[in-house]
Amino acid sequence: MRTVRLEAFSDGVFAIAATLLVLELRVPPDTTDLVSALFRLWPAYAAYLVSFLTIGIIWVNHHTLLEHCKRVDRRFLYLNLLLLVAVGIVPFPTALVDQYILTEHGATPALVVYGLGAVLIALAFTGIFLYTTHDHRLVGDSPSARRLREEGRLFPIGHGAYTLGIALAFVAQVASLAVYGLTALFYALPLLPLPKR
Amino acid sequence: MRTVRLEAFSDGVFAIAATLLVLELRVPPDTTDLVSALFRLWPAYAAYLVSFLTIGIIWVNHHTLLEHCKRVDRRFLYLNLLLLVAVGIVPFPTALVDQYILTEHGATPALVVYGLGAVLIALAFTGIFLYTTHDHRLVGDSPSARRLREEGRLFPIGHGAYTLGIALAFVAQVASLAVYGLTALFYALPLLPLPKR
Amino acid sequence: MRTVRLEAFSDGVFAIAATLLVLELRVPPDTTDLVSALFRLWPAYAAYLVSFLTIGIIWVNHHTLLEHCKRVDRRFLYLNLLLLVAVGIVPFPTALVDQYILTEHGATPALVVYGLGAVLIALAFTGIFLYTTHDHRLVGDSPSARRLREEGRLFPIGHGAYTLGIALAFVAQVASLAVYGLTALFYALPLLPLPKR
Amino acid sequence: MRTVRLEAFSDGVFAIAATLLVLELRVPPDTTDLVSALFRLWPAYAAYLVSFLTIGIIWVNHHTLLEHCKRVDRRFLYLNLLLLVAVGIVPFPTALVDQYILTEHGATPALVVYGLGAVLIALAFTGIFLYTTHDHRLVGDSPSARRLREEGRLFPIGHGAYTLGIALAFVAQVASLAVYGLTALFYALPLLPLPKR
Repeated sequence: MRTVRLEAFSDGVFAIAATLLVLELRVPPDTTDLVSALFRLWPAYAAYLVSFLTIGIIWVNHHTLLEHCKRVDRRFLYLNLLLLVAVGIVPFPTALVDQYILTEHGATPALVVYGLGAVLIALAFTGIFLYTTHDHRLVGDSPSARRLREEGRLFPIGHGAYTLGIALAFVAQVASLAVYGLTALFYALPLLPLPKR
Repeated sequence: MRTVRLEAFSDGVFAIAATLLVLELRVPPDTTDLVSALFRLWPAYAAYLVSFLTIGIIWVNHHTLLEHCKRVDRRFLYLNLLLLVAVGIVPFPTALVDQYILTEHGATPALVVYGLGAVLIALAFTGIFLYTTHDHRLVGDSPSARRLREEGRLFPIGHGAYTLGIALAFVAQVASLAVYGLTALFYALPLLPLPKR
Repeated sequence: MRTVRLEAFSDGVFAIAATLLVLELRVPPDTTDLVSALFRLWPAYAAYLVSFLTIGIIWVNHHTLLEHCKRVDRRFLYLNLLLLVAVGIVPFPTALVDQYILTEHGATPALVVYGLGAVLIALAFTGIFLYTTHDHRLVGDSPSARRLREEGRLFPIGHGAYTLGIALAFVAQVASLAVYGLTALFYALPLLPLPKR
Repeated sequence: MRTVRLEAFSDGVFAIAATLLVLELRVPPDTTDLVSALFRLWPAYAAYLVSFLTIGIIWVNHHTLLEHCKRVDRRFLYLNLLLLVAVGIVPFPTALVDQYILTEHGATPALVVYGLGAVLIALAFTGIFLYTTHDHRLVGDSPSARRLREEGRLFPIGHGAYTLGIALAFVAQVASLAVYGLTALFYALPLLPLPKR
């Protein structure tokens, strides 16, 4: 099966989920001091940046993985759909962090939900990764495919980091958000090598 | 006529309709107990999941059908447009279910509208299916095309299931939502075979 | 210059503008009688349908025109951008019609703005049509290109119809909305022939 | 690495950011005089137009630059992601200008934020431009690539104009908005030549 439409649909969901994030950047309607209201929005800017980068970086990895795939099958389509369900939900925890990170009662649950959303994406991507690379099913056995499989072993580091972020949500909220941001950057490392042609 | 732009436009509508669903996931603005508010949102999570999967699976079937089409004509474009009208409306009944499934007066109409939306998609897709496969018009007469035509006879099962879901909306609301979810999974069965190349 | 990215960007704007229309379908938050509230939404359903079809049909014509173009130039890109500005604005007049067609003071201005938006799209599309077909600039001089040029002479009928719709907004609102819907269907006629290959 | 998916993802973000702008065009809910409310929305129309054109024109330049690139690498993907972060944020300053340009306390900060957003896009695009053209890294050394590099020297004019717009926000708000619009048109000049084939 050709991958072109799979990519178009996936790219659409990635791009829309990332671009919808901006809708959460808004000043309260009864603002009389716009300057200080804009400064008080800093958690929303931080969450926008972390979430956009998370989606963008998972897109780069999705892209790299599919470059290795010679073909996809129907099971791949459904696994991919689960990843898109997880990516599409990102604006929801992002909005929670925007609104609740500065409140006393809401910061912890907001950051926990944020971390759970990130874990969902990481699990779905790992599932796709294992499905495509296992048993040379979809990516073959070239040297670069072998390196791909090896580097994929580093994925649990990201999973562990998100778990750490969830734990930190209970004791140090800003540290938790920082861990989420740094984990996105971890996935930005060139873990998945490009195919040699 | 080339199908590439038809696919791009359709993929766009599918992806946007699916990703807009997240906008309905929102905690009421005057929440003081975020944890219990997040738990009380369960119908919204369920509706998000069912609707996203419904759109995703209809996308897979649309994709599979077009893989069989050697070409499309102008009538196909307009039939496809009706399907997109139906897919694009999905966030509306989804929002109704989110907001009204837990109310006494609103659960039944919300679930009826949800079912009508699903029936609309199923009818439009069946229309496209019949148009493309009838009389070898657009999909030819290869063995896989013949199997495609045969499997398409199972579509009425899905239509019947949605009708059942609408009927259940009057007596057992949660069962109705479950039927909608299961019918989406029914369409996920590999009813439409991939073309052999 | 290749047309593939031009088409991707245009398809994105067409698809998003059409799919954003659903956000205007919403029941007032303090609804206690959902069934009658759903019936009272009929202008929103009608406006959703007319606007979605208008965008979808202009997409079909845009698609057909580009099939004839052997290449595009930078001026084409900017003319196309003006068309996208006009298409992207459609959800605004649609929302006005939704909200004001049943009010005494607002129906006329809402329908006038709706008609002006449609005229804007029709003018921008005619501009692109004239630019590409004039003097064999971008579409060449094959027999099908010649027929394309001839059929394009029927465009002013659509412009006239939209003007009629605007005039009717002052005296007969439902007739005005009907004219907008029928004009969309007029553009659905196979005015622009497909290229022969 | 192929550029097709990079373009699809980027086109998605460009198209969505531009089309989301329409959501800010809305009449206050308690309007009784729709005609004058529609006229009072003029800053929203102006901001819609300037922002849509800014995004559309940066898209044309992005498109032109990528036409010159023979390949992209992973660093390019991440630089491009920063550009998309900046483009995706455009609806936020646009909404600020819509809401605050007619208020006494808010016009200046709204226009400053608008200018900062434009500077962010201009910086990110210049970064991509320098990365791809520096040392013949991604665009080679054909005559048209050389002309590309030369014309890129005009970019600082745009940066300077945005800085002027930010300064004007403190003394003459309408002039500031006009400078932002004119700077978008400056980038519409054919600075980046198309590749010769």
